[in-house]
Amino acid sequence: MASRLRRLLIKGGRVVNDDQSVEADVYVEEGVVQEVGPNLNPKPPSGLTVLDATNKLVIPGGIDTHTHLQFPFMGTTSKDDFYTGTKAAVAGGTTMIIDFAVPQKGCSLIEAFNKWKGWADPKVCCDYALHVAVTWWSDKVHTTGIFQFHEVQMVLLQLELYLPYNTCTCKVYLADKESIKKLLAMGITGPEGHALSHNEDVEAEATHRAIAIANTVNCPLYVVHVMSKSSARMITNARNEGKVVYGEPIAAGLGIDGTNYWNEDWAHAAAHVMSPPLSPDPSTPDFLMNLLANDDLSVVGTDNCTFDTCQKALGKDDFTKIPNGLNGLEDRMSVVWEKGVYSGKMDENRFVAVTSTNAAKIFNLYPKKGRIAVGSDADIVIWDPEATRTISAKTHHQANNFNVFEGMVCHGVPVATISRGKVVYHDGVFNVTAGQGKYVSRPPFPPYVYERVKQREEEEIKYLELSPVEY
Amino acid sequence: MASRLRRLLIKGGRVVNDDQSVEADVYVEEGVVQEVGPNLNPKPPSGLTVLDATNKLVIPGGIDTHTHLQFPFMGTTSKDDFYTGTKAAVAGGTTMIIDFAVPQKGCSLIEAFNKWKGWADPKVCCDYALHVAVTWWSDKVHTTGIFQFHEVQMVLLQLELYLPYNTCTCKVYLADKESIKKLLAMGITGPEGHALSHNEDVEAEATHRAIAIANTVNCPLYVVHVMSKSSARMITNARNEGKVVYGEPIAAGLGIDGTNYWNEDWAHAAAHVMSPPLSPDPSTPDFLMNLLANDDLSVVGTDNCTFDTCQKALGKDDFTKIPNGLNGLEDRMSVVWEKGVYSGKMDENRFVAVTSTNAAKIFNLYPKKGRIAVGSDADIVIWDPEATRTISAKTHHQANNFNVFEGMVCHGVPVATISRGKVVYHDGVFNVTAGQGKYVSRPPFPPYVYERVKQREEEEIKYLELSPVEY
Amino acid sequence: MASRLRRLLIKGGRVVNDDQSVEADVYVEEGVVQEVGPNLNPKPPSGLTVLDATNKLVIPGGIDTHTHLQFPFMGTTSKDDFYTGTKAAVAGGTTMIIDFAVPQKGCSLIEAFNKWKGWADPKVCCDYALHVAVTWWSDKVHTTGIFQFHEVQMVLLQLELYLPYNTCTCKVYLADKESIKKLLAMGITGPEGHALSHNEDVEAEATHRAIAIANTVNCPLYVVHVMSKSSARMITNARNEGKVVYGEPIAAGLGIDGTNYWNEDWAHAAAHVMSPPLSPDPSTPDFLMNLLANDDLSVVGTDNCTFDTCQKALGKDDFTKIPNGLNGLEDRMSVVWEKGVYSGKMDENRFVAVTSTNAAKIFNLYPKKGRIAVGSDADIVIWDPEATRTISAKTHHQANNFNVFEGMVCHGVPVATISRGKVVYHDGVFNVTAGQGKYVSRPPFPPYVYERVKQREEEEIKYLELSPVEY
Amino acid sequence: MASRLRRLLIKGGRVVNDDQSVEADVYVEEGVVQEVGPNLNPKPPSGLTVLDATNKLVIPGGIDTHTHLQFPFMGTTSKDDFYTGTKAAVAGGTTMIIDFAVPQKGCSLIEAFNKWKGWADPKVCCDYALHVAVTWWSDKVHTTGIFQFHEVQMVLLQLELYLPYNTCTCKVYLADKESIKKLLAMGITGPEGHALSHNEDVEAEATHRAIAIANTVNCPLYVVHVMSKSSARMITNARNEGKVVYGEPIAAGLGIDGTNYWNEDWAHAAAHVMSPPLSPDPSTPDFLMNLLANDDLSVVGTDNCTFDTCQKALGKDDFTKIPNGLNGLEDRMSVVWEKGVYSGKMDENRFVAVTSTNAAKIFNLYPKKGRIAVGSDADIVIWDPEATRTISAKTHHQANNFNVFEGMVCHGVPVATISRGKVVYHDGVFNVTAGQGKYVSRPPFPPYVYERVKQREEEEIKYLELSPVEY
Repeated sequence: MASRLRRLLIKGGRVVNDDQSVEADVYVEEGVVQEVGPNLNPKPPSGLTVLDATNKLVIPGGIDTHTHLQFPFMGTTSKDDFYTGTKAAVAGGTTMIIDFAVPQKGCSLIEAFNKWKGWADPKVCCDYALHVAVTWWSDKVHTTGIFQFHEVQMVLLQLELYLPYNTCTCKVYLADKESIKKLLAMGITGPEGHALSHNEDVEAEATHRAIAIANTVNCPLYVVHVMSKSSARMITNARNEGKVVYGEPIAAGLGIDGTNYWNEDWAHAAAHVMSPPLSPDPSTPDFLMNLLANDDLSVVGTDNCTFDTCQKALGKDDFTKIPNGLNGLEDRMSVVWEKGVYSGKMDENRFVAVTSTNAAKIFNLYPKKGRIAVGSDADIVIWDPEATRTISAKTHHQANNFNVFEGMVCHGVPVATISRGKVVYHDGVFNVTAGQGKYVSRPPFPPYVYERVKQREEEEIKYLELSPVEY
Repeated sequence: MASRLRRLLIKGGRVVNDDQSVEADVYVEEGVVQEVGPNLNPKPPSGLTVLDATNKLVIPGGIDTHTHLQFPFMGTTSKDDFYTGTKAAVAGGTTMIIDFAVPQKGCSLIEAFNKWKGWADPKVCCDYALHVAVTWWSDKVHTTGIFQFHEVQMVLLQLELYLPYNTCTCKVYLADKESIKKLLAMGITGPEGHALSHNEDVEAEATHRAIAIANTVNCPLYVVHVMSKSSARMITNARNEGKVVYGEPIAAGLGIDGTNYWNEDWAHAAAHVMSPPLSPDPSTPDFLMNLLANDDLSVVGTDNCTFDTCQKALGKDDFTKIPNGLNGLEDRMSVVWEKGVYSGKMDENRFVAVTSTNAAKIFNLYPKKGRIAVGSDADIVIWDPEATRTISAKTHHQANNFNVFEGMVCHGVPVATISRGKVVYHDGVFNVTAGQGKYVSRPPFPPYVYERVKQREEEEIKYLELSPVEY
Repeated sequence: MASRLRRLLIKGGRVVNDDQSVEADVYVEEGVVQEVGPNLNPKPPSGLTVLDATNKLVIPGGIDTHTHLQFPFMGTTSKDDFYTGTKAAVAGGTTMIIDFAVPQKGCSLIEAFNKWKGWADPKVCCDYALHVAVTWWSDKVHTTGIFQFHEVQMVLLQLELYLPYNTCTCKVYLADKESIKKLLAMGITGPEGHALSHNEDVEAEATHRAIAIANTVNCPLYVVHVMSKSSARMITNARNEGKVVYGEPIAAGLGIDGTNYWNEDWAHAAAHVMSPPLSPDPSTPDFLMNLLANDDLSVVGTDNCTFDTCQKALGKDDFTKIPNGLNGLEDRMSVVWEKGVYSGKMDENRFVAVTSTNAAKIFNLYPKKGRIAVGSDADIVIWDPEATRTISAKTHHQANNFNVFEGMVCHGVPVATISRGKVVYHDGVFNVTAGQGKYVSRPPFPPYVYERVKQREEEEIKYLELSPVEY
Repeated sequence: MASRLRRLLIKGGRVVNDDQSVEADVYVEEGVVQEVGPNLNPKPPSGLTVLDATNKLVIPGGIDTHTHLQFPFMGTTSKDDFYTGTKAAVAGGTTMIIDFAVPQKGCSLIEAFNKWKGWADPKVCCDYALHVAVTWWSDKVHTTGIFQFHEVQMVLLQLELYLPYNTCTCKVYLADKESIKKLLAMGITGPEGHALSHNEDVEAEATHRAIAIANTVNCPLYVVHVMSKSSARMITNARNEGKVVYGEPIAAGLGIDGTNYWNEDWAHAAAHVMSPPLSPDPSTPDFLMNLLANDDLSVVGTDNCTFDTCQKALGKDDFTKIPNGLNGLEDRMSVVWEKGVYSGKMDENRFVAVTSTNAAKIFNLYPKKGRIAVGSDADIVIWDPEATRTISAKTHHQANNFNVFEGMVCHGVPVATISRGKVVYHDGVFNVTAGQGKYVSRPPFPPYVYERVKQREEEEIKYLELSPVEY
């Protein structure tokens, strides 16, 4: 029985990588791609699962760089756990997630890492990795983090950059306490207050500061959830000047906007509350997508952190108490296809780059993940670019009872999803087992990010010895 | 004798204000302009001092918005005191300065204010006012400052904005301790280390942050010593977006550049050390002057804080110990004329705006200062736009033995300077008395700055009640 | 009787010029301001008209830089002639217009100038001047234009700059023939086709090109009707780089947007058709107002060219045949006050600058026009900043039956309008005579524009002789 | 004997493609890559050429997108013909060039194409393709071009875009006739006059216009020889807004600057004359390299068009007569490595992208060219990143007697160059035969360029039917 799963042939499709598309079959054994080419005919024919991909695209499974599954937050826990979340993921064409282990104050990075891994391992339906957030600082944090595990080392290196942005500092800056006080005093207690208390200038300022600090110490920076034009412009400018900075917009920021905070239905408005908030400027999604198409932004995450209407109701009378977060994990691929590819902003190869390949490169998973090539993990999606589906909470597979993309008609539908060579989803039918996904170890210092950084380190000394005439 | 000084007629010149130039005489009594018009013939003719301004410009005396006279700093005291400094000022066509009272930690704003005023009053040769720096914070600072004196209230309002920029915060951010350590470890101990340890990105970051914070609380911002393109761009962008921000470049930043830090003569290089440093990019002065011409930058100060070569030698073996500061007070007007007007970047009216009128408006001295009109103080300069002079430490009137503009040939020479109706400098001859200048009180909330701010305060409440469709 | 009109005292108001506001009375004789100061008491008291301006502003009358009255265009003639147009103007607080004389092909500039002057002189209710458009080129155009009249010389100098922009060239570029063909073929014949056939990139391109050409020959440029963000950015950037460029947004571009082209009521949509069209981006008006407040844009015109619904119906079945033009002449001052001052973007002094003073400076009318000062023409408006009025075609004084600002509630209402010392409008009552306005001659080479240009001309030769190391 | 050449094994190197680097051997048969992987051991061992690449990089051969070999121009013919030019190319690590067939007026595109192909075929030492320039227009040009040959069709499609830029139009705009006249009249006849008569604003204007026109008709644009910051910014901005635009800097623009035009040695200065000229701003090369690293610019060409000192002397007394052109074909790879990789601006993968892969994608040669993968042409270079060489006319292989990079020490040296499986250059020894290169046919509509364009074409119709609320 197991052997049936172990050999897989995807026939007649168009294999789409980030650099090109070719008409080719894909043959998989033991979860790894063995051959890519025309008219494959692997022997023996028995025990071979064959999937027909005629007129379909065969793409690397999506990687969601930013999720918060079963996240204890603001007095409750996010609705999708590692099982429902990753199950919904594969239904949408995503075969790997990177979740955030977030230590409480006093808890070491390793403790947080182990706690999250303990939660995930028995539940995941696809592969996963972990970021570890640095939420407080002491010698203990530093020592434990740096020296004990490769995974954590990588994460720490990554997260040192997050310091001014993704931790408590971020909370201090992005939410404007003065504004909140004023708004509540004025009787503005609804979700629109969440938007009004956040100023895009402040998001841009935090981004700019993180870039300046990181660049001063020759450290790469990865900016999560880029939500505003002004923040995205900061990243674009920094990249134009040669700084090593990557920006991650999220599915919701590319698909919808912050006018939803003024929706007359409180539940609707509250369902969109996240931080930083969606931009109320309705031209923001297009703006971000253009930059994503042009490689000024690099990858698409989701910040998926779902709460149902009951949970959101904790903030019924005070927007500051509405649990922050929204969905995206299942629909990310479709939203990017619809708003990016179907709209003509990017081609199918760039789609693969921003939903999978670039994430694999930045987080040092490439080419095991993010590419369909001999030797790669068989995380593969058969994608029908002509089919359409309408997103709805009624039909989605996430645990939440609301979908921020409700009613969006999406061209581009995942027909089948393969995780490490196993067909986990096909024509609406799941074949998943909790815990079948694996934790994926990430070596520190991804060359895609660090080659330039190392070279600059060496160059700097020479530079300092030059006179201004010479440099 | 006194009566001779009290009545003055400037004949045959071209009166240049910031909005227009007219051929007109100017008649002054008791230090105040009485009449401006053609062919004035005040009676009686006796007891009337007449200055011939044929083929000359008659302009409002310059206002230097940023000086540090007899400033105790880095273990020594700046060379020019309130006497030599203001005497040199009038020789250069400047008739008012605004100096910085800088409290030591634990000292109240009022104490600092009184100390500085006590130093200045017996020495000044022209009018002056004081900023009070907020260098530390406690309830005492706040209470004393806000409620007791108008002058200090104004200064405080101004200086709240300086908080993230011009105080200890600034020091933390603009000097990069990591870089300093590395540089010294590499044996880079000379003045070029000063430039190398300052990163223009960091100056820009501090400017951007100050703008974001100030704007969030609807507070105007005045950014002193804008030294880099990147910082100036931040101000330009903010102004384009409607933020109430003013930028002050300084004479040195408009006239020379930071390549001087690599000069082989240590004394030469060290003489240029100031913070933030002059930009090593030789196209920066032109860039700043273009923005000044276009009103993206508003006024020209000097940050005049002179130290002679012996004092600079405190940092002979360690650039971090070189007393920070350079000259500018005497030469500011000539440098701006040469690089701004003679180069064709601005006309004579804009010259008056950036050397005098705008400062008067921003610091609530207008139209008493900054304009030649009936009722204005007779702070007037007769300016010969055709004459030239060569700047040199050998001939200047400042106490310092070095001049950062050494050798610069300047078109545009002050022929005569009049302070409150008294001719204090004429054809190279002084007629000054220590203490003849007056402290000028500045009412809080200059309308030029605050009209918009107040209106926005009122508008904000209405705005917050609007749905995004409406705003 | 005449003597009654000749002496006028405006008492108790707040005189607002572009540089400051002062509580002062204004005394006028023979159409010219004689005195500005507190508590004026002109003798004899008999024969003196006294206007009470308590709690009101006393401002220089508005100057509309861009009108097309009784303009023969697209097979019809614009509805407002020089009588109804200027009568409406004074009701709105505008006391001078600059109209466009537009020669037909083969007609000389002088012939066009004389034709337009012949139309205007017997009808105008306020002062006026003329631009002469260069719509074709031959030796005759050149010779006649340059050498015969000062007015035309000035206009020509101005208009040489317009060449790539404001003449037939403009028409070629701003309307995209390919798009029009495609749209009509698709059955898109309504006013939205007008917006769809104009591309803001093309407007920006034309602006950029005009700037590049003008700057290459060291020629100042005045860009009429700046309608889009991208075009305004081009002007802003050019000014930041020191180029002598001025941008004129129009009242409609500051007050409303191009979403009106999709209005279901054809007459409503068609009423907004002008070229370049209003931007469909609803954030454009705010963007332009911010730049106007910051002096990146300089003056506000209207491009007033009214057609009623019957005339617009010429294009009922084909948007390319809808006569281009909309109103603004009467409402310009109120719209700028509402969107600029009441919103907190600019103060009352900047309001005066952009509605009057800057126009006077750029077109060499200053300080006769554009300022309330001794010796200036008594073109004055008493403005009530607290009163409101609602704009409507039912109550306006223009000849057209539609008002693009319909329903806009405007704070800031002109109470009385004075033209050359005569009260022509007061509390809703007119006292105008056709032909009472005068043609105002404008000397060539306004110093506000040309001082820098001349200086650069001289500098260029020196510059060319420098090596790159020196410059 | 031939069979010895036909089988090649490159052992022990690090294979660098644009997406990743792997330690792998490369096995080649009949000019095509057969296998890429560790420890290859192809059978039989006899008849196998083995190249040791230990500690070396194995990279796709360079593609120079822009050359003018044996080009009849300005009264003479460029010095390097298709033999010396391509021989020098392989010595530098370039294995394919794209030259320009430039029809004289009246000559059809096909005639020009055939003429150039006739020149190239007997001489080339590596593969090549041709652009065909559209230098004039008639029905004949159009008809012949479109319908007869795929190659020309492709070229024409490409070149329609060039119309506003790369043809006579370009000449009209980029050279400012007025300036030339003035300069010559002033006695400025030397090469600095060439720089002074070109205004970077005008280059930017032409670029901006080409972008606007191309985008209006939904046509991709490829901008050759991007020489200035302002032009590069135009391309960057257009890409950020989603326009399909590619920019090509050239080796000289990345390696040196226009201060050379003021060199006291006439021959030195004249050797740098090309159009548009090198920028006199010494920070331009770094600026362009940063944008190239960030994919705002796409590929590196050379505009190689060499003339020796005698030929340049045609313009001894008049800079407008100096034949335009300089070298780059041989040194392009080394210059980009030195200024891009060694400086830390890009990593080795991006180096491959900008010197080879992107050109292959844009000109529809990928993955036959531009990648080392099974099935690709064996155009391969063994690159020693640690070795250095000093560029000099004394040692280079081009026919010219001057090298604009004279004295530049370059890290990164091509050790061996393989063209279609043949080792044509190894350790300084050539093994080339004139005519061994092949003309490479390019199918029209490269998907890398046209996928988005086609999708937009389809989307446009839907878009036009939407109301502004919907889009």
